[in-house]
Amino acid sequence: MERILYYNGVFAPENSVSITPFNRGLLYGDGLFETMRAYSGRVFRFAQHLNRLAEGLQVLRIEPCPPAADIERAVYELLDRNKLSDASIRLTLFRGDGEGFEPQNDRASSLLISARQFGNYRAEDYAQGFRVHMVFMRRNLYSPLSRIKSINYLDNILGRFEARDNNAQEALFLNSNGWVAEGATANIFMLKNKTLITPPADAGILPGITRAAVLEIARSINREVQEQTFSPEELLRSDEAFLTNSLMEIMPLVMVDERPVGSGIPGPLTRALHQHYRELVEKELQQSI
Amino acid sequence: MERILYYNGVFAPENSVSITPFNRGLLYGDGLFETMRAYSGRVFRFAQHLNRLAEGLQVLRIEPCPPAADIERAVYELLDRNKLSDASIRLTLFRGDGEGFEPQNDRASSLLISARQFGNYRAEDYAQGFRVHMVFMRRNLYSPLSRIKSINYLDNILGRFEARDNNAQEALFLNSNGWVAEGATANIFMLKNKTLITPPADAGILPGITRAAVLEIARSINREVQEQTFSPEELLRSDEAFLTNSLMEIMPLVMVDERPVGSGIPGPLTRALHQHYRELVEKELQQSI
Repeated sequence: MERILYYNGVFAPENSVSITPFNRGLLYGDGLFETMRAYSGRVFRFAQHLNRLAEGLQVLRIEPCPPAADIERAVYELLDRNKLSDASIRLTLFRGDGEGFEPQNDRASSLLISARQFGNYRAEDYAQGFRVHMVFMRRNLYSPLSRIKSINYLDNILGRFEARDNNAQEALFLNSNGWVAEGATANIFMLKNKTLITPPADAGILPGITRAAVLEIARSINREVQEQTFSPEELLRSDEAFLTNSLMEIMPLVMVDERPVGSGIPGPLTRALHQHYRELVEKELQQSI
Repeated sequence: MERILYYNGVFAPENSVSITPFNRGLLYGDGLFETMRAYSGRVFRFAQHLNRLAEGLQVLRIEPCPPAADIERAVYELLDRNKLSDASIRLTLFRGDGEGFEPQNDRASSLLISARQFGNYRAEDYAQGFRVHMVFMRRNLYSPLSRIKSINYLDNILGRFEARDNNAQEALFLNSNGWVAEGATANIFMLKNKTLITPPADAGILPGITRAAVLEIARSINREVQEQTFSPEELLRSDEAFLTNSLMEIMPLVMVDERPVGSGIPGPLTRALHQHYRELVEKELQQSI
């Protein structure tokens, strides 16, 4: 069966979806996206993803946007039509078509949704943890693009290239002030003297939905939590560290280039938080049915 | 007559060109573009535009790219088919299709070319000069994207919004170190004590084709030229200033926000250089026939 996509109100086989050459995504990367995960047919923290999308739309001055309820309905129908239960879902919203550099705001925005089967990262990834490579690129504190999930995504792609060149699974981006910011597609946490620390929202990061869930979990188990900047050296001297995003959830971070983070093996709090995270997913899944 | 576009080897009416939803421009802004100007049916400095495109492809690791001769042929056939003589031409090159964040490099890149009638900016624009607004966003010295013309173009769009909000025609971007870099779609020059000064290529700028032509012209008339950084205050204290790009050529810059640049009116060197620029265009046009 050919995969079905959603585009502007229509469900169609992927090879019959046709985008005009005036889509501003093509011309200027003028749009936003979200990557979400469905467990047993339910999207985890759907409302939070849609809120983040709405914030991005405001930053980019894109309007109007389809109502959240319509987007939700479309995503669930897409999962149904593709007979998907555990899936990664990508939702891309483009500013209304137009060739000119300065947009005409009377054009309706376009919405593309795709979904594919997604299970879990491999057990050995979690057992071994990820290595990161500190890349040349830095997050620009002087651009609102650092805090929204726009399709201006080339820095991340180049960062991942550089990481792969250096035998690492993920890139480590500093921000323009030299503090640790995030990965190409992940937020970062470290544990230091029993306190869980992650860079704050204004440190040139995309505030992840998984990041927010981890902060919630840590507080709920009375773990001290700080949102504050730290240096790459502090990261190396931490007790343990991990990366988060919707697809990999909570991935141990064990090396920065050739140097171990803490003892260089996945840490006990990382494992415990991942266990709590899966319980949270399970709990919210039950509540939503 | 409906306008004809070129897409991957085919000339077709614009409404019948169809792009797949897996084009990486749509998904990640993963591509490059060039905006060129044709005078009397000849593209000015075509080779330089194609060289810049090739440099961008190398930075993004996009390959293979169609040979320069094929691109040239396609552009001229497109002008013919649209009966265009004085035109602006946009060429967009996308990395090979693929949904995954990390690209598969065995897919061929895609090339989209469009052209439209373009005369000149209005005489009163040149007579009055442009006002710029110094925007919040800064060019990221820690990203190679600052020096290539990628379709990650949102900073420029947001900068232009901010400029329009402030009654200016163009944005003025500083770089992350606080030096003057460029406009949203233009390079910047100032004249100080008879020396023509423009930010160097490594100052977080896109090295413009028009910028290079202006440097050439200034040297050919024995004008002292420096590529060096300067501050917004130095710009205000300059004798005159101007903006350059392929479409507006050389546009006087007369105000930064509410403050005049030099005497606040278009300067004599700006006018003389524009005259020389048009002569250069004419000369190269003659040679190319």
